[in-house]
Amino acid sequence: MVFNVTVNSAWRATRTLWLLMLVSLSVSICVCRASSIQEEDSAMENIVTEKKVEESHRQDSADLLIFIMLLTLTILTIWLFKHRRFRFLHETGLAMIYGVLVGVVLRYGIHVPRDISNVTMSCHVNASPATLLLNISGKFYEYTLKGEIGANKVNDVQEDNEMLRKVTFDPEVFFNILLPPIIFHAGYSLKRRHFFRNMGSILAYAFLGTVVSCFVIGLLMYGCVLLMKQVGQLGGDFFFTDCLFFGAIVSATDPVTVLAIFNELQVDVDLYALLFGESVLNDAVAVILSSSIVAYQPQGDNSHTFEVMALLKSFGMFLGVFSGSFALGVATGFTKLRDFPLLETALFFLMSWSTFLLAEACGFTGVVAVLFCGITQAHYTFNNLSPDSQDRTKQLFELLNFLAENFIFSYMGLALFTFQNHVFNPMFIVGAFVAVFLGRAANIYPLSLLLNLGRRNKITSNFQHMMMFAGLRGAMTFALSIRDTATYARQMMFTTTLLVVFFTVWICGGGTTQMLSCQHIRVGVDSDQDNPVSITEGSERRSTKQESAWLFRIWYNFDHNYLKPILTHSGPPLTATLPPCCGPLARFLTSAQAYENECQLKDDDSDLILTDGDINLTYGDITVSTDASGSHTSGGPAFAGAATSDDLDRELTYGDHELVMRGTRLVLPMDDSEPPFTDPHYRLRM
Amino acid sequence: MVFNVTVNSAWRATRTLWLLMLVSLSVSICVCRASSIQEEDSAMENIVTEKKVEESHRQDSADLLIFIMLLTLTILTIWLFKHRRFRFLHETGLAMIYGVLVGVVLRYGIHVPRDISNVTMSCHVNASPATLLLNISGKFYEYTLKGEIGANKVNDVQEDNEMLRKVTFDPEVFFNILLPPIIFHAGYSLKRRHFFRNMGSILAYAFLGTVVSCFVIGLLMYGCVLLMKQVGQLGGDFFFTDCLFFGAIVSATDPVTVLAIFNELQVDVDLYALLFGESVLNDAVAVILSSSIVAYQPQGDNSHTFEVMALLKSFGMFLGVFSGSFALGVATGFTKLRDFPLLETALFFLMSWSTFLLAEACGFTGVVAVLFCGITQAHYTFNNLSPDSQDRTKQLFELLNFLAENFIFSYMGLALFTFQNHVFNPMFIVGAFVAVFLGRAANIYPLSLLLNLGRRNKITSNFQHMMMFAGLRGAMTFALSIRDTATYARQMMFTTTLLVVFFTVWICGGGTTQMLSCQHIRVGVDSDQDNPVSITEGSERRSTKQESAWLFRIWYNFDHNYLKPILTHSGPPLTATLPPCCGPLARFLTSAQAYENECQLKDDDSDLILTDGDINLTYGDITVSTDASGSHTSGGPAFAGAATSDDLDRELTYGDHELVMRGTRLVLPMDDSEPPFTDPHYRLRM
Repeated sequence: MVFNVTVNSAWRATRTLWLLMLVSLSVSICVCRASSIQEEDSAMENIVTEKKVEESHRQDSADLLIFIMLLTLTILTIWLFKHRRFRFLHETGLAMIYGVLVGVVLRYGIHVPRDISNVTMSCHVNASPATLLLNISGKFYEYTLKGEIGANKVNDVQEDNEMLRKVTFDPEVFFNILLPPIIFHAGYSLKRRHFFRNMGSILAYAFLGTVVSCFVIGLLMYGCVLLMKQVGQLGGDFFFTDCLFFGAIVSATDPVTVLAIFNELQVDVDLYALLFGESVLNDAVAVILSSSIVAYQPQGDNSHTFEVMALLKSFGMFLGVFSGSFALGVATGFTKLRDFPLLETALFFLMSWSTFLLAEACGFTGVVAVLFCGITQAHYTFNNLSPDSQDRTKQLFELLNFLAENFIFSYMGLALFTFQNHVFNPMFIVGAFVAVFLGRAANIYPLSLLLNLGRRNKITSNFQHMMMFAGLRGAMTFALSIRDTATYARQMMFTTTLLVVFFTVWICGGGTTQMLSCQHIRVGVDSDQDNPVSITEGSERRSTKQESAWLFRIWYNFDHNYLKPILTHSGPPLTATLPPCCGPLARFLTSAQAYENECQLKDDDSDLILTDGDINLTYGDITVSTDASGSHTSGGPAFAGAATSDDLDRELTYGDHELVMRGTRLVLPMDDSEPPFTDPHYRLRM
Repeated sequence: MVFNVTVNSAWRATRTLWLLMLVSLSVSICVCRASSIQEEDSAMENIVTEKKVEESHRQDSADLLIFIMLLTLTILTIWLFKHRRFRFLHETGLAMIYGVLVGVVLRYGIHVPRDISNVTMSCHVNASPATLLLNISGKFYEYTLKGEIGANKVNDVQEDNEMLRKVTFDPEVFFNILLPPIIFHAGYSLKRRHFFRNMGSILAYAFLGTVVSCFVIGLLMYGCVLLMKQVGQLGGDFFFTDCLFFGAIVSATDPVTVLAIFNELQVDVDLYALLFGESVLNDAVAVILSSSIVAYQPQGDNSHTFEVMALLKSFGMFLGVFSGSFALGVATGFTKLRDFPLLETALFFLMSWSTFLLAEACGFTGVVAVLFCGITQAHYTFNNLSPDSQDRTKQLFELLNFLAENFIFSYMGLALFTFQNHVFNPMFIVGAFVAVFLGRAANIYPLSLLLNLGRRNKITSNFQHMMMFAGLRGAMTFALSIRDTATYARQMMFTTTLLVVFFTVWICGGGTTQMLSCQHIRVGVDSDQDNPVSITEGSERRSTKQESAWLFRIWYNFDHNYLKPILTHSGPPLTATLPPCCGPLARFLTSAQAYENECQLKDDDSDLILTDGDINLTYGDITVSTDASGSHTSGGPAFAGAATSDDLDRELTYGDHELVMRGTRLVLPMDDSEPPFTDPHYRLRM
């Protein structure tokens, strides 16, 4: 007997909402419970240290539970939104809202009797030891150093609401636990054709643009601060380096909300690539800028000027880290644990993590190392993984990214009310909003003008407006600003930064669809298909293009012909790319699998960049359309002795074609030589 | 052109070994580097607190890096072993060996100048505050309480080698971070037919057996300690509760090594189920026993006796935790986020973690909660997940388990040399080995004798010897013993426990294959096929079997007919199992999907318990063989009004059959009524 009863959606929605209520109830119960436990215990018995430690652990668990409940609530609500195709609020914005709500409850809803357990002691010791042994009436207690506290804050610490203090995490948690997976995932996702096609512009926006934005914001804020001094609105020191530091931290954009909507609506791929690429790379720039500003700040000579040497040193470090993570990524590539996906995934995870730790142990910034590690892993190591491990690693980092991101955003919401040292200065806040706006404008519009001189595929003005609009601030800005909130200047910065993040995520993030339709940006573009506009226009700029792509083309040739075959199983066999005299060496370095890949054209890859049916590549100004009907798929004798530059070019073109069909991630068709075959679809525009 | 060059395996092995060398080199470099950085910095500038904190962070990163390198080395070596089918050493044993090696290097190889940075201060304060503010020459430093230190250990702390101290983790890390994924994974894997078939015996071994073992070991050790006191070998206090505590912690078996080999060699499934089920559940028993022993120890009245009330209280807690985690698991089941695997996986992960935190926040033991959460999730929630999420969660927990397990074992190796307060007492160690052996014997042999009275499928003597032999001690024992190493007794226990773990993992784990062949235990058994011996023998014990299975059968009926349909999408629709008068309610509670599942027989589940071709079920003493040719697959009118008990039984039998083919995990054929169909393969033996 077949039952045809369908549960209607109203019932399901009711059930879900009921669950939501249940969960939020449990949140409040947990919170109350956590505090009541504390009271009860402390009243019941003497102050036994063991009990205290245990109670502190219990409280920690309860605090973490609040965050988990927040995340759970967020996930459930996101699901509801996705189900209803409701696009005004992204999961991160939602996490923030829930965070704010719980923050309000924690701040005003629960009264915890003040626990006067902090004691200030004056001891005559010269040093501040890392470990302190305290002899209290015959018993010894071990204490560990947490850090220095400003003299003006001593009272604050004593007056603190113990529970709010507990909910506040150590800022280093963000840098060492939550940020790495987010950044790694960003780097790991940077493997799109359109990213590489817009490489030049992305690098310009990310490096030059961020530096410009940092200095513009810094200078504007310095003006604002000077004005505040005149008016008497400033309650503490605020140096020029502080302004620059502020400029650096709010220059890190994080358009996660915008990109999610772009992805869903299939907005123009070039715009997507520009925004995503910029946001990934400018995180690294912002970290390096801010750390090089900080590094030369507290030297005691009160000069508080920005040192160019520091920046140069940072860039040196940058290169060191890059090569280090490159080497690590490569080392993973050699292992070929293909038969054991679990081992492979574990190794991949450990390698990525060790990059972070290695950089940190050497005194570099681990986050930057992780970013480049992600890019390298995606470019080389990923190709060596078994299909099973490719799925596993992708899913693993996707999950970690999702959890970390939502955790950070809900923490942000919470911090608005639970952070104890907010400095709300309206004048500074207004100044900051203006400066952030102008800084973004000074980044996008002049650079776009310059880049358009060299670009065939122009960045149109509506794209520019959209990029301007999409300058959201997110996780990285928050993590940088919460890292140090010791001084007055830093506290004011933190508060302002929080507001900037809130405003941009809610207002700019929520208004993305409106902005898209307002700017008449095409929606529903098939990412596999090139924008047809880009082919017809701008063909006169060929030589300019040629020049700017020159360096890049050399790199690409080197990478595709030598690095990829040596480091991965994909790409043409070395025997084909190396001169014939190097034959034995080539055979030695090429794996058996590369030959197999070469012979059998596998397209089992789900992320295949182009569809099999119709391949359409843009070679500079030349568009080659060919249907991959198999006529050009077998490795022919044309490969054998590709020694001359012409042959290399030809083979490269040919190789690209193959590459795409074999499912390798990188397609970088910078070559504009004549394709080696004449095809009915082949068109040359000059 | 096709290249037929195959890279020979010798070359590949060389390359791998080269990589091994590279990695181990980097380990030593990291270690040296970490210490050299410390020296350099401390020589270069004044003792600035910020610098110290940063340096401490750097050192932490370096320490963590050592462990990651250890894990990497382990993974690479395991891969080599698996590749070579080398079974003498399991990955955990290997991790321990590498740990010992690095421990030796850290202890004796690297000389770090002693950093006299610990200062003892005598202050006249009555309480030991959680947060301490220290006024050192005008600057305020914040300190946090770590715990109390015995007066005799104050000098130790000051004399400690700073680096060795750093490599030593906070013991709570094991309990709060590393153990939960291991235990959850164990619970999550407990979904095998053979586990449920041997449920009674497993529960007996795990609960009764562990308590017996605990007391036997405790008493023997008390005798040993008394003897040591006589001889004058005891250097500190050692109470009877300490002995019992030792008995509890070394009663937790962890035959991970043995089971890995069992899995590979396809050893008899019943033996596998007995060992695995026992080891999973006795972890929970050991945790509860030890915590209830500890709970009533330091009350100050010096009675140091074991209180039965504490145990009873623990069991009450146990039930509370069980129902709590059950409720949580069920809550997850309601969400039905099937369309978004990422959200689903994230929710699943968060739910499992929140069970742990909730239990900890309430003062229960989170590890036990996580174990039952895992079992519940596997039994109910898993069926509600989309196939994609099923894979994702399985892989995620597999990875976490793998990493945590190997981390713990390599840490164990390291701790042998880096732990600073070892108390090697030869007499105690010998006594402990004897006690552990006798305790295990007192668990296995008498219980097996008793169980065999009620079991149709006898636990033969070679199985008993094998179970005796497989009583390895592992992660849980270690975590319990390192949790508190403050007193002399606990330090001696820790050292002894470490040696017990080493011995059992290396000797017993390494000798598994020898033991298997020595005991003539069948290898290469197809787990989908019942052991044919079990069908022919023991048919006279039907009534005994009947009685003992009575309670269990009621539970199974209730679970299968009501809980499963309400909580998951599998199982028969409620409209079929509930009496006709409850029709509307049944239709309301049953999801549309359950009907679909009911109608379309899906067998897309990879973990299908029986193969489709030939289904062979053992119903008590009756064996029913039927080929699933589709003749009995459609839900017929027999379902409609199953109101009487007879009908229910019949339908249950029928449902089982269906259940198996639909790929639900649980097959519990306890019913011995006549199957409702007559089949040529149907045989009745009485």
